[in-house]
Amino acid sequence: MVCVRIREAKEGDCGNILGLIRELAEFEKLSDQVKICEEDLRADGFGENPFYHCLIAESLPDLGDPQGPCVVGYGLYYFIYSTWKGRNIYLEDIYVKPEYRGQGIGSKIIKKVAEVAVDKGCSQLRLSALNWNKRAVDLYKALGAQDLTEIEGWHSFRFEGEVMRKLAGK
Amino acid sequence: MVCVRIREAKEGDCGNILGLIRELAEFEKLSDQVKICEEDLRADGFGENPFYHCLIAESLPDLGDPQGPCVVGYGLYYFIYSTWKGRNIYLEDIYVKPEYRGQGIGSKIIKKVAEVAVDKGCSQLRLSALNWNKRAVDLYKALGAQDLTEIEGWHSFRFEGEVMRKLAGK
Repeated sequence: MVCVRIREAKEGDCGNILGLIRELAEFEKLSDQVKICEEDLRADGFGENPFYHCLIAESLPDLGDPQGPCVVGYGLYYFIYSTWKGRNIYLEDIYVKPEYRGQGIGSKIIKKVAEVAVDKGCSQLRLSALNWNKRAVDLYKALGAQDLTEIEGWHSFRFEGEVMRKLAGK
Repeated sequence: MVCVRIREAKEGDCGNILGLIRELAEFEKLSDQVKICEEDLRADGFGENPFYHCLIAESLPDLGDPQGPCVVGYGLYYFIYSTWKGRNIYLEDIYVKPEYRGQGIGSKIIKKVAEVAVDKGCSQLRLSALNWNKRAVDLYKALGAQDLTEIEGWHSFRFEGEVMRKLAGK
């Protein structure tokens, strides 16, 4: 069992974050969809009005270990708006490297995001999961999340690329 | 067939917007969940860094008609962030009053949001629909949207209220 702490990401973490984004997309079998680069992550997350916020999970070295802290997971979120409840948080990505799973690191990240949500006056924390990702679904449910697709029938839709440009008449 | 224009909402529209938010929630059979008030909508949408943006559909009176323009629908959106594609738009609500449906007003609202998305450099426009709302689902698909819940298996989860506070240790 390693000792892990959750901290806010700094601009210098963007290289590590991009690596984890790619690992997560690969796990989701959707890695062909990743088009973002490190420069985008720097510009979009660390300017005056950042488009996202990111938490880093890092394992702390043992006393006397010459190796520094090692990034083992991340949670990336932003603020959204519910016309029923006002300002809320959406956890876009949450990921823990395979060799560090089963140690409660995912729960730690979610709890930290919930803390931010409460501190910022949000009443909801939303996220999405692939229905075949049983480990993630079980964790979210165990922590008390409701599956709104199951309960209320919500489906996610997306207009993208050429389709969206055509819609826009551009 | 009435003549309808789509325009950006002004702060003075918040009373009308709240009325439409309540109508939409009622249609979705979820109206007990609406906790927002007009003051929240004013503060959250019309400050320096607005949490949302809103489009208003209004029918224009005939020449010589003493009645002014009449609000018949709305689309409420905000910017989100994809770790695959960068900045995107999420259309949180779209609604057209029952007596004005079947005239392409919903499509007009979506097209205008797509235009904003393209102008702002977004590559995706996302939204959600209840699976029993066949009219909405058919419209989104006809306009080219992909049902990601159907195709890829995405489910929406939510932590809320007491559950979230407990998670946050508050």
